[in-house]
Amino acid sequence: MEQRTEISTLGEFGLIEHLTKNNEIKHASTIYSIGDDAAIIDHFGKQTVITTDMLIEGIHFDLMYTPLKHLGYKSVVVNVSDIYAMNATPVQITIAIAFSNRFSVEALDEFYEGVYSACEKYNVDLIGGDTTTSQKGFIISVTAIGEVTPDKYVTRSRAKKGDLLCVSGDLGGAFLGLTLLEREKKIFLETKGVQPDLENQDYIIGRILKPEARKDIIEFFAANELMPTSMIDVSDGLSSEVLHICKQSKVGCILYEEKIPVNDLTRQFAYKLELDPTACALSGGEDYELVFTIAQSDYTKMVLNEQLSVIGYITDREEGTNLITKGGNKYQLTAQGWNAFNK
Amino acid sequence: MEQRTEISTLGEFGLIEHLTKNNEIKHASTIYSIGDDAAIIDHFGKQTVITTDMLIEGIHFDLMYTPLKHLGYKSVVVNVSDIYAMNATPVQITIAIAFSNRFSVEALDEFYEGVYSACEKYNVDLIGGDTTTSQKGFIISVTAIGEVTPDKYVTRSRAKKGDLLCVSGDLGGAFLGLTLLEREKKIFLETKGVQPDLENQDYIIGRILKPEARKDIIEFFAANELMPTSMIDVSDGLSSEVLHICKQSKVGCILYEEKIPVNDLTRQFAYKLELDPTACALSGGEDYELVFTIAQSDYTKMVLNEQLSVIGYITDREEGTNLITKGGNKYQLTAQGWNAFNK
Repeated sequence: MEQRTEISTLGEFGLIEHLTKNNEIKHASTIYSIGDDAAIIDHFGKQTVITTDMLIEGIHFDLMYTPLKHLGYKSVVVNVSDIYAMNATPVQITIAIAFSNRFSVEALDEFYEGVYSACEKYNVDLIGGDTTTSQKGFIISVTAIGEVTPDKYVTRSRAKKGDLLCVSGDLGGAFLGLTLLEREKKIFLETKGVQPDLENQDYIIGRILKPEARKDIIEFFAANELMPTSMIDVSDGLSSEVLHICKQSKVGCILYEEKIPVNDLTRQFAYKLELDPTACALSGGEDYELVFTIAQSDYTKMVLNEQLSVIGYITDREEGTNLITKGGNKYQLTAQGWNAFNK
Repeated sequence: MEQRTEISTLGEFGLIEHLTKNNEIKHASTIYSIGDDAAIIDHFGKQTVITTDMLIEGIHFDLMYTPLKHLGYKSVVVNVSDIYAMNATPVQITIAIAFSNRFSVEALDEFYEGVYSACEKYNVDLIGGDTTTSQKGFIISVTAIGEVTPDKYVTRSRAKKGDLLCVSGDLGGAFLGLTLLEREKKIFLETKGVQPDLENQDYIIGRILKPEARKDIIEFFAANELMPTSMIDVSDGLSSEVLHICKQSKVGCILYEEKIPVNDLTRQFAYKLELDPTACALSGGEDYELVFTIAQSDYTKMVLNEQLSVIGYITDREEGTNLITKGGNKYQLTAQGWNAFNK
């Protein structure tokens, strides 16, 4: 039988000690970590970048098909992804969680295993947090702290006319993974006893349950002295992110449907469900890829990286935000990401 | 009729713009604020202090008697209090909130009015956050960022034998305010139509609904070149906080019951309810006063500040953590704060 230790047997402080006893500090800048009113970091000669994100059971994740370890991992990833999207390096995180009494110490251990695994992968220190009770469900709030060489940060607001619009990796997979998991959940609930058929769709399921942030791309930029003019990560969907850049940079854009990178496994599964892969990429979200713009003169610095695609270019604001379809038609880009897919 | 604007009429990004349109940046170190993946701060020559706290409806607050404006104010206060408890100055905060559809735009405006009011009072910049949906209730997660002159931070772990144990302000009021509000809520629910009788207990009600953090004490320390050897703020109750200092500093203590500062209004109300005011101070929590230790040689630097009381002294660890009652009896201090009073 699986062990179940009630959290009440440890108490709040006992629980914090239990969950953080194997926490390793990697950065010299982390002067003081968990175990006080606050943590202390030393960022001499660097600028500090801060971001925060909240994840709520039933809204952002479903524990019916999300392993807690993956959830812990993803909670860190979505936040470090925001730090990379500023062209900065994540260095520390704090994590606050709240949970009802249906969670055992073993369940929290699993969650933290994922947290520590992501901390290891992305080389960040866990420096603090809060542990409390919820009336219902599991609630996670992560704050990530990064650093950047002064004035090397990249915002959403400096894209210029003529800049190339680019994206890392491929898009739409996370949305299709979610669609598959939701379909199997529905079948399972309606027909008790039927085991989920995930059809060996490891790629798209991995994209939704265990996404990765693009540390490698930020390192590539640094190694090649390439500084994007604007950047954002894909949490709500490509359309929504491109529109953010255009709005905040006060520019327009041309985006070519045929240039949007979609993995073959994603494409095949989309066709199977009779969905348009481009629509999944544009509106699906949660891919945690980087969308960015670069000066045309920097094109030679990125051309050899197969992980990067040019998908369009920046225009004057007056020309609008446009999608050119494979058939050559021009449509106005609309952001359906958040409103359409969030419950 | 009161106006009610559905949040869905604004959408996520419209809501963020609405809530942050009057946000003023006060610090030169705040380089880049709300509106990107992350905020950027510049802390050259200072150390950065970070803390995070989560507040959950039904666990940490009850909207039946907590005005949303007060809640917004308190959410900031409890976090800046943790920064002060490190002998640091709060400079920025991020705030993530989640709420169900029973909240209107006007309700969120009220909450943010309190947030901005606290930002003004404590001179901090709101630099980012997250706004999302919850399945149930109102959830708040605040991260506060402070700065401190290198190595002037004060932890819980450097109290030494012979140091004086001190506290700011007075204790127990917040707990009694909560007790009064809970009593009236119960009467109201059981006897519909009966209006709450708060008995003009403004002091204790203010202590629970609109606490203040001790900015003045940290400024006093700086002005008088007084550096505590350890410090913590009172969130769980004096006992719990003193035990944290003793455990982390590996020392013992003597705490005198008669020296514990309790406001007259608090004391009178405690007697009325036949409660022991000392017990309320020791175990009540949420007073957000500062508990600290200083070297005996620094006593002359603090003696003229009427907001500070010496309540005991630090001993060898072997002597234990002891409370000396008014009757001269010696008891071992126990922390009942969190376990006894949190639901």
